[in-house]
Parts: sequence; C-alpha cells; structure tokens
Amino acid sequence: MSKHLAILAGSGDLPQILAAHCPDALFVSFAGVPVTVPQGQAHFAASFEQIGALFEALKSAGITDLVFAGAMQRPALNPAKFDAQMLGLAPRLLAAMGQGDDALLREVAAVFEEQGFALKAAHAVVPALLMQSGEHIGPDPTAQEERDCAKGLEILAALSPLDVGQAVVLSGGQVLGIETLQGTDSMLAYVADTPPQLRRGKGVLIKAPKQGQDLRFDVPSIGADTIHAAARAGLAGVYIRAGSVNVLHRDAAEQALQETGLFLRAL
Amino acid sequence: MSKHLAILAGSGDLPQILAAHCPDALFVSFAGVPVTVPQGQAHFAASFEQIGALFEALKSAGITDLVFAGAMQRPALNPAKFDAQMLGLAPRLLAAMGQGDDALLREVAAVFEEQGFALKAAHAVVPALLMQSGEHIGPDPTAQEERDCAKGLEILAALSPLDVGQAVVLSGGQVLGIETLQGTDSMLAYVADTPPQLRRGKGVLIKAPKQGQDLRFDVPSIGADTIHAAARAGLAGVYIRAGSVNVLHRDAAEQALQETGLFLRAL
Repeated sequence: MSKHLAILAGSGDLPQILAAHCPDALFVSFAGVPVTVPQGQAHFAASFEQIGALFEALKSAGITDLVFAGAMQRPALNPAKFDAQMLGLAPRLLAAMGQGDDALLREVAAVFEEQGFALKAAHAVVPALLMQSGEHIGPDPTAQEERDCAKGLEILAALSPLDVGQAVVLSGGQVLGIETLQGTDSMLAYVADTPPQLRRGKGVLIKAPKQGQDLRFDVPSIGADTIHAAARAGLAGVYIRAGSVNVLHRDAAEQALQETGLFLRAL
Repeated sequence: MSKHLAILAGSGDLPQILAAHCPDALFVSFAGVPVTVPQGQAHFAASFEQIGALFEALKSAGITDLVFAGAMQRPALNPAKFDAQMLGLAPRLLAAMGQGDDALLREVAAVFEEQGFALKAAHAVVPALLMQSGEHIGPDPTAQEERDCAKGLEILAALSPLDVGQAVVLSGGQVLGIETLQGTDSMLAYVADTPPQLRRGKGVLIKAPKQGQDLRFDVPSIGADTIHAAARAGLAGVYIRAGSVNVLHRDAAEQALQETGLFLRAL
C-alpha cells in the first residue's frame, strides 16, 4: 500500500521515521522547509506557491494517500510565483489563516481531500508511535502527581477551545508553565529556570492534543529530547493522552526514561 | 481615619506607597517577609506563628481597619512556635492551603474579619492607584492589538476558575505567554526571548484579576518596571482591567510609557 503513499515532510524526526517504515513511499519536501531526503527514497521537491504542480506530480505517481508529518512553520509566500491553482486557493487559505492555526490546517486538509487524496494519520501508518491507555514506563506517580495531572487536564480543557495549550506543567498544585506558541521544549526550559523557593516538589508535564485537533495531520509528539528537557526542569514524570500523542523513537525515549528516572504514563 | 488603620506589609512597593499616604497608620511586618519600615512610622513586628499576639497588638493600638499590601510568599512555619490562637486556626488554614492560593487568602481574610477588623482594599485607601475605564496614555492601539486584547481576555476568563492566569501576551492573534506562578515580569522575560521568526508584529500584555479574586487584599499591580519589561519583550502596549489593577507610582509609570513609546489602556 505504501507505494501509493506520499509523506509530506515538515521539520522534526517524524518524516524520517515514516520514511524508514515506508521505503517505497514518495517523500515530498517543500521549499523553505529544511528536511533531509532519505537515501534511496523517491522524492518530489514541491513549493507552496506551485501547489498545482504538486497535485499533478502526486497523481501521476499514482499516489492515493497522504500523510502530513512534522511541523511546518507558516512559510513566507511569494504571490508572484503562484500557479493557477494556488491563485484560486489563496483567498480561502488567507481567510482561514486569520482564524488561527487550526483553521488553516483544516482548510489545507480540505484542499487535498477535494483533489481526491485520503489523509492518513502518521500513527495509522506506523501504529507503534502511539501508547495505549494505561501503558506506563518507570516509577509510579505519587498521589500529588496524579492530582497535578488531573488539574493539568482541566487547564488544557479550558484553553482548548481558544486554540492554545497542548502542554502544561504543575508541581504541588501550582501551575509552573502553560505551553504557548514557542512549544513544549521552550516551556520546559522556562520551568527549569523557576527559582527553587517558588517550587513545591518536583512536578509533572501533561501533554494532550487540543479539543477538535485534526489528528490526521497534527499530532503532538514527545521523544527522548522531551524526557531530557523534563528532567532538566526537575520534573518527576510525563503524562500523555493515549492514542493521540506520538512517542517518536520509542527505544530512545525508553532509554531516556531509564537514564533520568522519570515515568511516562498514557492516560 | 488612618490612625485606626494597620498596613500588613508584604513585599513590593505597595506597603511603602500606602505608608507614605497614611503616615499615622500602624505598619506591620512579618518575620521572614523582608520589608523596609518607613522612617518615623509606628511599627509592629509580627510573626505568622504568633497570630494571637498580632490580634492583641492591633486591638490595643485601637486598629479597626486593615489593608493587606504587597505579595507574601507562603512562609515556612514552625509549629513549635505557634501560640494558642494559631494552634486553633492552623487546621483551617492548612485545609484551605490544599485548595490553592485563592482559598488560603479567603480563609486568612475570614480569620481577621472574625476578630472584628474591616479589610480595606489598597485602592480604597489610595484611590489614585486605580485607572478608570477608558483612561488611556500613549499612542492608540491598532485594530489587531484590540483583537489581541479581546482574545487575551477570553483566555484569562477561561483560566480564571482554575486559579491561574492574571496576565497574558498576544501578538498577531498568537499567544506568546500565559502567566503562571513565576509572575508577570518572568513571563515578559520569556516573551522577550521568543525567536523573532515565530513572531508576527509587536503584541500586547493584558492584565486582569482572576474571577472571584478578593480585591480587598489581592490586587494585581503594574508599575514602571512592568512597562520597561513589556518594552524589552517588544510589545506595543499594556491593557489593564479598570478598577481592579493597581498602577504603582503613577508618575514613574507615565514616564516609562513616555520613554518606551508604549500605550497603557484601562478597560
């Protein structure tokens, strides 16, 4: 099946993980988004301005399924380079852009679906990316850590309709960090800098997708880097929403848990 | 009237501002909370462990009104030093503490009220601390900044029931910072470190009390420091909730606005 699959590659490790799992998939890169094309993988170099050319290339390669993998910063677009299809789509995309990142992604998804492509979640292609509910690695959380997790989930639920907050850090009932645009690792570095006298105990990171987030092409991820950043922030462990947060490179993540003594629990 | 007033001093500038305004008030400091007692001001050195002694001292000085001024970190308490009244109150205070900072403050307020004292807001004693709705200093905000403010207020409203978030930073529709335990200045320093390529335009700080926050003794504040920190974070201006955010040292704040070119608007 994966010879009918194209991997639309953003930044981060996910495109590489998918390519390693699907060596006969078509790997699509975009001008302005730095990615390494895996050795020996079929590759199409696309640009957002020439989206019609991308549709053509996908169709003539017999692609039926697409997987969006990795993060894409909103690229700087040059309207002078727009092809006919992009000229037609630009007003829709610009209108969506004004309503936030989620709206833009939904619109991009709709555009590809109208072209007849099926969008697959990365974890539909590589099921090992997900943890199941109840899966747990490392030491048990304390009762306080469980309460911190419960309050963290409430905070994420309250923020979710406002298209903000995929992660939060609590310690001893106190909120030490709420993820904003800068991302999880940046928030963890902020928490690491919290003066010790403000802290009560270690604390936990809670990560979950926003409500209504389209998990076919925008799934929160953690990996060994996240575990190490959480350890530097002094935390005791990490909670993720089962079935909707990717664990990249599971082996490396498990090794990071071993090294740091943190727990990882899927809820 | 202010000779019947005691200023219960926490950290920050507010106790000094009140003392300067009410030179015949009794200035109460607490062991473990560093404050400078104003020259020539009547002073009582209290400790949280000996709260009965504080009640006595206040009553024998003819105090009827109290103003809580400035921030108090939760002090380290030594139960071996508790006097009879504190031994009686400790279980109530500990139970409240488990429910968060707001609950603790409400309980402390109740304790003083049961002793017959009236709690006054700092701005009831020094009305110049507050700005009125519509008051505006500096350049006009742009339409985008007004939209950012509206979205910021929505975020604060969503978080408010969870006892978190007195301030938020938005820029071009994107959330760059949500205040957590570390406070507004710390959040602004975090925003200042945001990589420029993630930012769209300047942005604004929005500050407001949490819903249900007891404004008699826990009022968010800004001052010249906040204006300078907002300028270092690259922001265009500051919105505050009229009537419920103190502007400390108005002259210095206005000078900071002049120097930085930021606006300050009360909503």
